[in-house]
Amino acid sequence: MGYVRTFVPRSAAQSPLFVGVDLGGTNVKIGVVDDLGRPLSWVSIPTDAVAGPDVAVRRMAIAVGEAIAQAGLVPSDIVACGLGSPGTMDIPTGMLLDPPNLPGWQNYPLRDRLSDAIKLPVTFANDANSAAFGEFWVGSGRELDSMIMFTLGTGVGGGIILGDLSVDGHHSTGSELGHVILDHHADARMCPCGQPGHLEAYSSATAVVKRTRELLDGGRASSIIARLRRGEELTTLLLGEEADAGDPLADEVLMEAAGYLGVGITTVMHTIDPEGVLLGGAMTFGGEQTPLGRRFLERVRAEIRRRAFPVLAEKTKVAYAYLGGDAGFIGAAGLARLAHHKTVQGSGLKVQG
Amino acid sequence: MGYVRTFVPRSAAQSPLFVGVDLGGTNVKIGVVDDLGRPLSWVSIPTDAVAGPDVAVRRMAIAVGEAIAQAGLVPSDIVACGLGSPGTMDIPTGMLLDPPNLPGWQNYPLRDRLSDAIKLPVTFANDANSAAFGEFWVGSGRELDSMIMFTLGTGVGGGIILGDLSVDGHHSTGSELGHVILDHHADARMCPCGQPGHLEAYSSATAVVKRTRELLDGGRASSIIARLRRGEELTTLLLGEEADAGDPLADEVLMEAAGYLGVGITTVMHTIDPEGVLLGGAMTFGGEQTPLGRRFLERVRAEIRRRAFPVLAEKTKVAYAYLGGDAGFIGAAGLARLAHHKTVQGSGLKVQG
Repeated sequence: MGYVRTFVPRSAAQSPLFVGVDLGGTNVKIGVVDDLGRPLSWVSIPTDAVAGPDVAVRRMAIAVGEAIAQAGLVPSDIVACGLGSPGTMDIPTGMLLDPPNLPGWQNYPLRDRLSDAIKLPVTFANDANSAAFGEFWVGSGRELDSMIMFTLGTGVGGGIILGDLSVDGHHSTGSELGHVILDHHADARMCPCGQPGHLEAYSSATAVVKRTRELLDGGRASSIIARLRRGEELTTLLLGEEADAGDPLADEVLMEAAGYLGVGITTVMHTIDPEGVLLGGAMTFGGEQTPLGRRFLERVRAEIRRRAFPVLAEKTKVAYAYLGGDAGFIGAAGLARLAHHKTVQGSGLKVQG
Repeated sequence: MGYVRTFVPRSAAQSPLFVGVDLGGTNVKIGVVDDLGRPLSWVSIPTDAVAGPDVAVRRMAIAVGEAIAQAGLVPSDIVACGLGSPGTMDIPTGMLLDPPNLPGWQNYPLRDRLSDAIKLPVTFANDANSAAFGEFWVGSGRELDSMIMFTLGTGVGGGIILGDLSVDGHHSTGSELGHVILDHHADARMCPCGQPGHLEAYSSATAVVKRTRELLDGGRASSIIARLRRGEELTTLLLGEEADAGDPLADEVLMEAAGYLGVGITTVMHTIDPEGVLLGGAMTFGGEQTPLGRRFLERVRAEIRRRAFPVLAEKTKVAYAYLGGDAGFIGAAGLARLAHHKTVQGSGLKVQG
């Protein structure tokens, strides 16, 4: 999203230094981050979840070492590590519970195993909350005192940051903004979680692809059909290209998803009233840099203007996220930093990059 | 709600002492509260909003003096005052903006005028958030680390408390839980705020009365009809009596409101994931002490069990509030206390009553 990755040289880095680990179902991204939120290095390795968590932890520890070496540092230069992980999880005990994206990793003490392997204190957070915290710390939310973030991908992830507080929730299930209910009716669109009417059933990439298929099956004409006949896969990338090329159906489906997102955002605005709302993830179409990205955002804003309290519709900032795929490891490092400074200095401190 | 008001005698009160002011459209309730959240006294005066805010502030200052005298204290015994007020408001500047329940009080510097009149520092908060903080401090939420509260009356008020943080919102519009959207359709039930599909259009006393009239106008039989013919007013009290007496229509309408409340609660649970959810206000039918109150709560819980993530449905506490009409002034005093201790000691401290 316009984010130019600038690695800070070791000589210019502001101590203390942290490692951030962004564990995903497919890849693990690991980087060294300084006290101002600037990355010094990063590495990415396949998660290889099927090999099991013990093997993955060993490989993650090696990759942490590589990220440290790549920054020209030695392990003792790092004071703490932050880990963002898919749920379900129990944050206070550092346990993974039953993560659907990491099959076979049930009831695994991930935080402590990683801590043992890298010999650093490790903070543990939800991956979407980590990404939101990265944006809040040094990304698109760096001027905000509070924000909510929606990550539009296969599902719809969420994060809520109120000052130093990332809303993890009492049962480690906070900020699940994809599961805000838009429609209480039993026949509302079905969310992959099994419940009707959730935002994720309307504004995720999965939902948009499903909705397109429904309309095509219903006999709607579209330039998409020719591409599918050529064997192309129906993705939001393809939909975005066709919407840009003027296909009414592709445009309708994407703008409809944006409108529903505006409904969900309004509910969370009335609940939290943050200073700003950020949108990230693959389904943001290149963000402000592309015509489709700008139209998508304008449609979201229009729905908010139509539905939210006037003061919120007028004043709440709604913008795209900035750090892209780096938000996760930077935010994880930021949460480690927050815990470190609270321990050492007795208070958290938002330092702007 | 089973709350037995015990005034703490002056000799047993734990200093420092605070005054709480709960300003409503009809009455102002004012009390002295000690450091453990126990009231030493309270007085209630009519708001008499039409006389304008300057007159009301003078009368409130006199009533503050009365509450202090009633507790056997002198003004210098009190260290700070908390004020809870209906919105709309700007909390940082202490201004009322355009409060629909206080006509003629637009753009009024209420916090500072009251502070000048009583010569005490005054904290300023939304009335629903103050009530929620009272319950959190010494009421039904006193064992919780985080909670949301729904106040079911003419409208549906909300409060979100996360530890020491009352979620006022960046634009002083946080925790407006009555304006969570249950139904995105344009033909959904209309909220008094002018938007379709809000919780308040389904689960407030106003909504329940309106729904009953619709069903009666549609020709439904009900024991309510005879009472209306005798000139009685259709209220939730009457509906509750008829539901208790076995009238199917009254029962249906109230249980339907409870179900919709469960939908709205689920959305906020997925957003905040609090340790507990409290229900207060007139439309709680006497709470756990009455058969109807117990059935209403059971219907809310059943909807949450049906809709929420299993871990939340199983573990989140859902209960009635406890302090009744005292929650507002106690909570306002509690917020003044929090600010006082943060200033004096550098940290907030939840002391349990």
